[in-house]
Amino acid sequence: MASIFSKIINREIPAHIVAEDEHCIAFLDIMPLVKGHVLVVPKEETDYIFDMHPDTLARLTVFAQKVAKAIDKTIKCTRVGVAVIGLEVPHVHIHLIPMKTMDDVNFSRPKLKLSQEELAEIAETIRKGF
Amino acid sequence: MASIFSKIINREIPAHIVAEDEHCIAFLDIMPLVKGHVLVVPKEETDYIFDMHPDTLARLTVFAQKVAKAIDKTIKCTRVGVAVIGLEVPHVHIHLIPMKTMDDVNFSRPKLKLSQEELAEIAETIRKGF
Repeated sequence: MASIFSKIINREIPAHIVAEDEHCIAFLDIMPLVKGHVLVVPKEETDYIFDMHPDTLARLTVFAQKVAKAIDKTIKCTRVGVAVIGLEVPHVHIHLIPMKTMDDVNFSRPKLKLSQEELAEIAETIRKGF
Repeated sequence: MASIFSKIINREIPAHIVAEDEHCIAFLDIMPLVKGHVLVVPKEETDYIFDMHPDTLARLTVFAQKVAKAIDKTIKCTRVGVAVIGLEVPHVHIHLIPMKTMDDVNFSRPKLKLSQEELAEIAETIRKGF
């Protein structure tokens, strides 16, 4: 069965997409730790990041770098933090998290609840920086 | 001034090194979240990961993948998690964290205190898997 991320890639379910190319996509995490929390996902469905072909992993990382630069340009933060946990959705996703403090990447914290309008506005802001 | 990681690279201060090539090095975090917590570092000193040249970043990621595979082979875990925070030491470092649960990558948790002997043993174990 297609992962929830494949359904986003195939436009079967909506998402606030901030960047996309032939092989990768980036969209807002709907349970963000902070405003501008983005997931970067390869279009090819793989469960575990370290099972990816090295070339595919390298390509995903360089795409994530471009997205991080767009976040840095558009969202107020000290720098963009990175996390790959992968114990929930079985489809590789890199968390890009605009940080002000270490605690901004603490996944044990309660998530923000943002409206669809707020998410759409944040996505539009980052898209402009990409 | 050389970062603490450059001093490790130049063998000016000791570390429990688990893997090394021309451009990258991996050694144990001495304040680990869990046993087998490794830092992957580029030899060229850059503060912020997303300021790296895309090719250099890609090379670092592929090196980190090899280290993660060695951790997966040798340290009991569900998978290896990834974090890049970078608010402390101004020299890029990727945390590779053998996880059993989400909380294993929570940097707010108290760190483990392991003896030099325990660290040496863990490093030797991972080195054998590399």
